[in-house]
Amino acid sequence: MNVGFIGLGKMGQAMTRRILGAGHELTVYNRTKEKTAGLAGAGAAVAETIAQACQGREVVITMVSDDKAVEEVTLARGGIRDALAREAIHLCMGTHSVAAIQALAQAHREAGQRLVCAPVLGRPDAAASGQLGIVAAGPPDAVKACEPLFQAMGRRTFGAGPRHEGAAAIKLTNNFVLGAAIEAMAEAFSLVRKYGVAAQVLFDVMTDALFAAPAYKIYGKIIVEESYDKVGFMTLQGLKDINLALAAADQARVPMPTANNVRDRLLGAIAHGDGEKDWAVMAREQNRASGIE
Amino acid sequence: MNVGFIGLGKMGQAMTRRILGAGHELTVYNRTKEKTAGLAGAGAAVAETIAQACQGREVVITMVSDDKAVEEVTLARGGIRDALAREAIHLCMGTHSVAAIQALAQAHREAGQRLVCAPVLGRPDAAASGQLGIVAAGPPDAVKACEPLFQAMGRRTFGAGPRHEGAAAIKLTNNFVLGAAIEAMAEAFSLVRKYGVAAQVLFDVMTDALFAAPAYKIYGKIIVEESYDKVGFMTLQGLKDINLALAAADQARVPMPTANNVRDRLLGAIAHGDGEKDWAVMAREQNRASGIE
Amino acid sequence: MNVGFIGLGKMGQAMTRRILGAGHELTVYNRTKEKTAGLAGAGAAVAETIAQACQGREVVITMVSDDKAVEEVTLARGGIRDALAREAIHLCMGTHSVAAIQALAQAHREAGQRLVCAPVLGRPDAAASGQLGIVAAGPPDAVKACEPLFQAMGRRTFGAGPRHEGAAAIKLTNNFVLGAAIEAMAEAFSLVRKYGVAAQVLFDVMTDALFAAPAYKIYGKIIVEESYDKVGFMTLQGLKDINLALAAADQARVPMPTANNVRDRLLGAIAHGDGEKDWAVMAREQNRASGIE
Amino acid sequence: MNVGFIGLGKMGQAMTRRILGAGHELTVYNRTKEKTAGLAGAGAAVAETIAQACQGREVVITMVSDDKAVEEVTLARGGIRDALAREAIHLCMGTHSVAAIQALAQAHREAGQRLVCAPVLGRPDAAASGQLGIVAAGPPDAVKACEPLFQAMGRRTFGAGPRHEGAAAIKLTNNFVLGAAIEAMAEAFSLVRKYGVAAQVLFDVMTDALFAAPAYKIYGKIIVEESYDKVGFMTLQGLKDINLALAAADQARVPMPTANNVRDRLLGAIAHGDGEKDWAVMAREQNRASGIE
Repeated sequence: MNVGFIGLGKMGQAMTRRILGAGHELTVYNRTKEKTAGLAGAGAAVAETIAQACQGREVVITMVSDDKAVEEVTLARGGIRDALAREAIHLCMGTHSVAAIQALAQAHREAGQRLVCAPVLGRPDAAASGQLGIVAAGPPDAVKACEPLFQAMGRRTFGAGPRHEGAAAIKLTNNFVLGAAIEAMAEAFSLVRKYGVAAQVLFDVMTDALFAAPAYKIYGKIIVEESYDKVGFMTLQGLKDINLALAAADQARVPMPTANNVRDRLLGAIAHGDGEKDWAVMAREQNRASGIE
Repeated sequence: MNVGFIGLGKMGQAMTRRILGAGHELTVYNRTKEKTAGLAGAGAAVAETIAQACQGREVVITMVSDDKAVEEVTLARGGIRDALAREAIHLCMGTHSVAAIQALAQAHREAGQRLVCAPVLGRPDAAASGQLGIVAAGPPDAVKACEPLFQAMGRRTFGAGPRHEGAAAIKLTNNFVLGAAIEAMAEAFSLVRKYGVAAQVLFDVMTDALFAAPAYKIYGKIIVEESYDKVGFMTLQGLKDINLALAAADQARVPMPTANNVRDRLLGAIAHGDGEKDWAVMAREQNRASGIE
Repeated sequence: MNVGFIGLGKMGQAMTRRILGAGHELTVYNRTKEKTAGLAGAGAAVAETIAQACQGREVVITMVSDDKAVEEVTLARGGIRDALAREAIHLCMGTHSVAAIQALAQAHREAGQRLVCAPVLGRPDAAASGQLGIVAAGPPDAVKACEPLFQAMGRRTFGAGPRHEGAAAIKLTNNFVLGAAIEAMAEAFSLVRKYGVAAQVLFDVMTDALFAAPAYKIYGKIIVEESYDKVGFMTLQGLKDINLALAAADQARVPMPTANNVRDRLLGAIAHGDGEKDWAVMAREQNRASGIE
Repeated sequence: MNVGFIGLGKMGQAMTRRILGAGHELTVYNRTKEKTAGLAGAGAAVAETIAQACQGREVVITMVSDDKAVEEVTLARGGIRDALAREAIHLCMGTHSVAAIQALAQAHREAGQRLVCAPVLGRPDAAASGQLGIVAAGPPDAVKACEPLFQAMGRRTFGAGPRHEGAAAIKLTNNFVLGAAIEAMAEAFSLVRKYGVAAQVLFDVMTDALFAAPAYKIYGKIIVEESYDKVGFMTLQGLKDINLALAAADQARVPMPTANNVRDRLLGAIAHGDGEKDWAVMAREQNRASGIE
């Protein structure tokens, strides 16, 4: 396929190499041009403008950091909306609010273009080895047209139906469930600690059976070792994502008390200077609230 | 070993057969005597009184339903405290409050007896096949003395240290973490549903990787299928256990906001008549709160 | 009337003097007899036992510190149940759980006696001047029979209907509403403080109109002045009362998320060593959670 | 003084008449011009554009409905920033987010103008009789310059210091404290109701002393009478304001668990179709959550 790609952060770098590796024709754009250098050497064309990245493409992928960025590259003058051909596809793979996705959907609909919302699950190393999970929503024909790209980048694609924002909701919700698991562990570890039990014992019990899954093994281990400085997912980033989930809940009129707890815990951690630690530092904040240390 | 066993509910039935199967000498007692019939046929002696079940035993095991029951069989006139020999062991395997365990510990200490607190993880089928998880706390020599019994009944023993109530805290905490996971799923499923996504999609995403563990697979499936009538763990029982966890938190001065959410959700479910459903019915209660159906 | 009175703490001392002052015949009992000395001088008879305080009385009043105490003086051998005449009235004026009141009600019903549950609003100084609020529930004829006593002790009586525990529920609920107001102020003051506004400004705005009431004026002032050492109502006592409200909510199947917040805040304060401060110290705990100081 | 006024809703209508009544020279602007008719008859000049309302004024007041509106009239081309003279004052009296006020402050600072943030407490009838409370923040000289206007419109001015957003924080916080009081009453009334107590009894007890203030008398009465159709402050408006308070808390890193409860309760009410009722309908939502009705 003839593909444009906007946004060459760590994830974008890994994803574009998978696309090139699968033999697709690729044109890349990044606001700071230095990041395109390696890809040019690997066979990608480099666009000088967003418009160039869009013109003549069947699909243009965006993998940018937040709502503001995706709205700018899409809706600003000379952006994707202005430059992409009718019927061509904007495949939006970043993590965005449902409101942003709804705004993009409307803009593309009015411009006769198609939108596929397909946020990914996994980190740069999973992206590099084509092992991402991909949650895709949008018009069925458009989603289907993107399948060769999903196969290049991912291990499994989850079809989330025709409403674009459904895929965003799934992504944000999955992150919330993770935040809730960390919060639960934070409360749990502080409780047993007050009864003189070593954290490792609770970790062993949990991960032996009922909770024998990465969410508990990875984040439980960080809590047991208090290794919050090795940052997998940063507290400030966790707050951003939880706020997106709560904004989705607000729009949909869904009370989410546990999401509120996660948000408050993250706010407390940031207030105590732990904003740039791994978000498992929620456990340290819970300890503070319990008078431990 | 020469063992007494008090409390022949479903779990007790399965556990006693494992003990007999391992070649130990067993005397059983149950308040309603009919439940001892099968065990008598399988080689157990049947005691007429609690005292008979205790006299001459190295270890007497209790597996009774709640704090009131364990306090009665232990502390009432003619109970374990009165009948068990000095240095003999009360191996308490039910799920009890930390306060109850502390009370038993003091009583046995004063009577020159030893207490091991060893609640179990797993259901009757796991007990029948000797696959329980066992969390054991108490004086190291006493815990060690019970090992042959743990091996007869369980798959793995988790040593929780010398403080008896530490094992109770672990058990209650582990149950809380499960309740919190169900609550998180309840909130999650209601959110994506409002965005038109089928519940199965979120289930697939969650259990594909981060949450590929029984807690999410079993209870997520119940929520997706709304099969709350097949009761694995009853809502009213869930409330009882969460209240025990909150009582432990109260005593230890640990704020547990997510435990509060679980409690409130269970109360709401019971208020709406779902007290005898499986506690995954928390998801139905969350739907109600969100105006779904 | 011919009245017995059990429980001569600060409140009991003040209430008994009002009863004597109104010309009633009074016999008092207290576990530690020294506290009866002043009353003997003021004209009260002093009973050596609870039974003596009950025999021959139309009404026996209890004003004791907690559930355990009221259950002991009422239900233990030689207690009120055993000693009070049939048709005579136990007027229970302490703050107790709904469960304790229900237990007393059943015991008195079975003994052919009558129970009036009538907790009071106000502190010892209000009691001394006969300015208590009294919330009374029980059989209408029994409540009516107590009116001369209510008039001696109180400024206003609120009839809470025939169900005894209704009066307990009102009292506990009113305390909860106060705890919730303090919690709201705690959150409010920490928020404006982060925006550089002096606490006094928010205090002035609140108490100028919408919240021009003692709850806000008294506790808001303590927060503004951080005068937590002058204890009006102790944090540990606040926790006890909130736990009684939550127990009532548990029995009635009412989720009370804000009561949970108050409980958690009090637990946090106690965990940080503020258990014996005035419970407005919740504001200091909220500041801690916000990284202030 | 020579004053411009933008935004002639119910509040604006009442406030402009007070300004005229105090003898100031007034030029008004409203997006839909019909609303200026009455004021023209009362002596106000009518501006055709925002710029006309600003040019030559010492102070231009805005009283518009939300952040979007105030940002548009201030920052859009031809808005207040472009048209107001250097050193002149933008007196912003609507209820806005701290972020919006911060953005206005920066814009005016760069344009050499002065901003006073002065949200009001009170409804249109209070505005009509000059009985508003006014919370004013900004440069002391600018606040002082506005005093004649405050005296025309208000009963009392609360100085909130030099940081503009401090006044916004006070206003939002005060509204939150009100929402929290309603939430507490909602929980309280549902609890006593389950114990068979008439709502009026709790109302009488609360408002007799500790809570003898408009917040409890007005909203408690609505709850007792279930008169949610007479709308003083609409649920949807309540949600908007609570979200502004939570956004302020997010920026300042302040966990506010009770604000979360209020938000969730309002969301639930809206989900059940009560978005356009008075926000005391939170009590009906709490009843639903408790299985009442």
